[in-house]
Amino acid sequence: MNRTSDVIVIGGGVIGCAIGYELARRGARVLIIEMRQAGLGATQASAGMLAPYIEGRAGGALLQLAARSLAIYDEFVPQVSADSGVEIEYLRPGTLQVATDEQAASALSEEASRLVATGVAARFVGPPELAETEPLLAPDIVGGLLVPSHGYVRAGAMTSALEAALVRHGARFEIGRVLEVVRGGGCLRVKMEAAHFDARTVVLAAGSWSGRVQIENVAAVPVRPVRGQLVQLESPAPLLRHVIWGPDCYLVPWADGTLLVGATSEDAGFDERATAAGVRDLLEAVCELVPHAWQAGFTGVRVGLRPATPDELPIVGASARLPGLVYATGHYRNGILLAPLTARLVAALILEEHADPVPELSPQRFGEL
Amino acid sequence: MNRTSDVIVIGGGVIGCAIGYELARRGARVLIIEMRQAGLGATQASAGMLAPYIEGRAGGALLQLAARSLAIYDEFVPQVSADSGVEIEYLRPGTLQVATDEQAASALSEEASRLVATGVAARFVGPPELAETEPLLAPDIVGGLLVPSHGYVRAGAMTSALEAALVRHGARFEIGRVLEVVRGGGCLRVKMEAAHFDARTVVLAAGSWSGRVQIENVAAVPVRPVRGQLVQLESPAPLLRHVIWGPDCYLVPWADGTLLVGATSEDAGFDERATAAGVRDLLEAVCELVPHAWQAGFTGVRVGLRPATPDELPIVGASARLPGLVYATGHYRNGILLAPLTARLVAALILEEHADPVPELSPQRFGEL
Repeated sequence: MNRTSDVIVIGGGVIGCAIGYELARRGARVLIIEMRQAGLGATQASAGMLAPYIEGRAGGALLQLAARSLAIYDEFVPQVSADSGVEIEYLRPGTLQVATDEQAASALSEEASRLVATGVAARFVGPPELAETEPLLAPDIVGGLLVPSHGYVRAGAMTSALEAALVRHGARFEIGRVLEVVRGGGCLRVKMEAAHFDARTVVLAAGSWSGRVQIENVAAVPVRPVRGQLVQLESPAPLLRHVIWGPDCYLVPWADGTLLVGATSEDAGFDERATAAGVRDLLEAVCELVPHAWQAGFTGVRVGLRPATPDELPIVGASARLPGLVYATGHYRNGILLAPLTARLVAALILEEHADPVPELSPQRFGEL
Repeated sequence: MNRTSDVIVIGGGVIGCAIGYELARRGARVLIIEMRQAGLGATQASAGMLAPYIEGRAGGALLQLAARSLAIYDEFVPQVSADSGVEIEYLRPGTLQVATDEQAASALSEEASRLVATGVAARFVGPPELAETEPLLAPDIVGGLLVPSHGYVRAGAMTSALEAALVRHGARFEIGRVLEVVRGGGCLRVKMEAAHFDARTVVLAAGSWSGRVQIENVAAVPVRPVRGQLVQLESPAPLLRHVIWGPDCYLVPWADGTLLVGATSEDAGFDERATAAGVRDLLEAVCELVPHAWQAGFTGVRVGLRPATPDELPIVGASARLPGLVYATGHYRNGILLAPLTARLVAALILEEHADPVPELSPQRFGEL
């Protein structure tokens, strides 16, 4: 077996797989090293929502990046699907962010005007129309902000498809824990318990576990796990027409009647258990928005650890201290949405002279990385 | 293959398996016909609680039968365990039925006196002692009735053990749907979709599905399904010392830290889904009794359909209209508790001249059965 690759990606979540896919598709020999199995990290906590104008409301870098990544989605999903032979449910039915009091409603109405002023299709939907737009919402919901370009992708299906596409493009997978990354004879060496692998470039995309990888000459990357629990309900037909964003949960209705209810945000270290409180809170929250959901089937709860950085923006870029090391981690709540863009940015950084660095995502904003 | 058995048992739940086991152990050639897989019916809704003096509080036949069956348990479990090689967690830590107001507390105190007067060990535990008896109970619980002889058995383990013991005793299993039971040449014939089986005796132990089996010359047995949902939590060590019976749920703490929270009672036909409302209600109920449970892990929800009769007592006895047919169904919430006694009653009825019929359980109380 050839133990030398062009690129080793540490982490087989959606970020690691998307990067590996982009590189392998463009001819690089890629090895993905995953701790256990692809998609068991933050992806588990993801409802796959694609909503830059909600997630990035604060403006700044996240909004721009999210909008840029969403613009790639229409091309990215069919490509991954074709390369893998795996169908990926990807729809853009729009999001409806709802308000339960007049003050929140008027804030949403103002937000609609602001979005329209910047060229984003959006409108405020008031009570008479609201019942037609989304008939099963609770009657005490007084208004909603509709953003028609928003949507969702089935995150699990996308990760599976990326894995399959990687294999078709000749990438290899290793399961196990990475202990250390060190310099060695003109390349980097990734040490595991019973093996080691060499490559010119190593991408650290290990999500919440990124800080646990020892890297020669470099400080630990500042990501901490934020637990997300996500409940899955089912009904014979979809209860909702849009992705709903409420004050205490968001709801993603799949075409088959599945309803994803996300998600808690908890500082619980590396504890990946679902809890009684988490499940209860999500069930309460969904039923406040959609009383009908009480009678929906309960089909399970998923838990994932999202990698949060101190400023809640990802870390994407080359190490200034260890040549060949590239960071792609800390995507927090936006890994699914930002995966296509991150993959392109990192592939460009590795394969092209003219990389497109995003200063706001620079690893060096957190010191000697 | 010999298609003739001494006894065919229709239904591989805890009742059917216990009867089959008792018969096979005593030398009968037994065939169990189960719709899908043993233990997927009412057993799924069972926390395995063994508490005659709670379940049978109304007095009458149920109390007597439950107490009689519990008395057999100390012998029954080790026997099944030895015959199967399967360990069965069976403990008698006592039940603590709790009251959340003074009126309920004084009713429990009176109940304690009544039980003691009839020779049952029981006592009322008031506030100062309560916190020592069960430290993690909510502070607003004002008293409890302790019945030390009560306990629980792991219902799933018991069903698995009964299955294994049946196989060791030479019994056979068939999976499939029974369409009809008819007379045929000196025996009864059980017709399935692609096969039929003959036996001198047929035991109808199909729980909620008993009324769906067509039987020559006999009316449908009056059982209806009552859905029970049961939530499973876990913590590193048991949160409770006793089985707890509260106003809205009961709690069974396993030795490994699992906490069973049972159970809803719902008329939902043959719908075996867990629901958002069911899970929420159980989580609310457990956390009202044991606030600590909020942080417990949520490991799943199980659903079972309990077979209820119009008077909520089981139907155990011979058919008066079809010789060779024996009923053992309708055990509602008490199948686990009543299984050992039911097995003995039915085996005696089939194998011995001197059967021990229980008039209150007679099928004929519901007409032409």
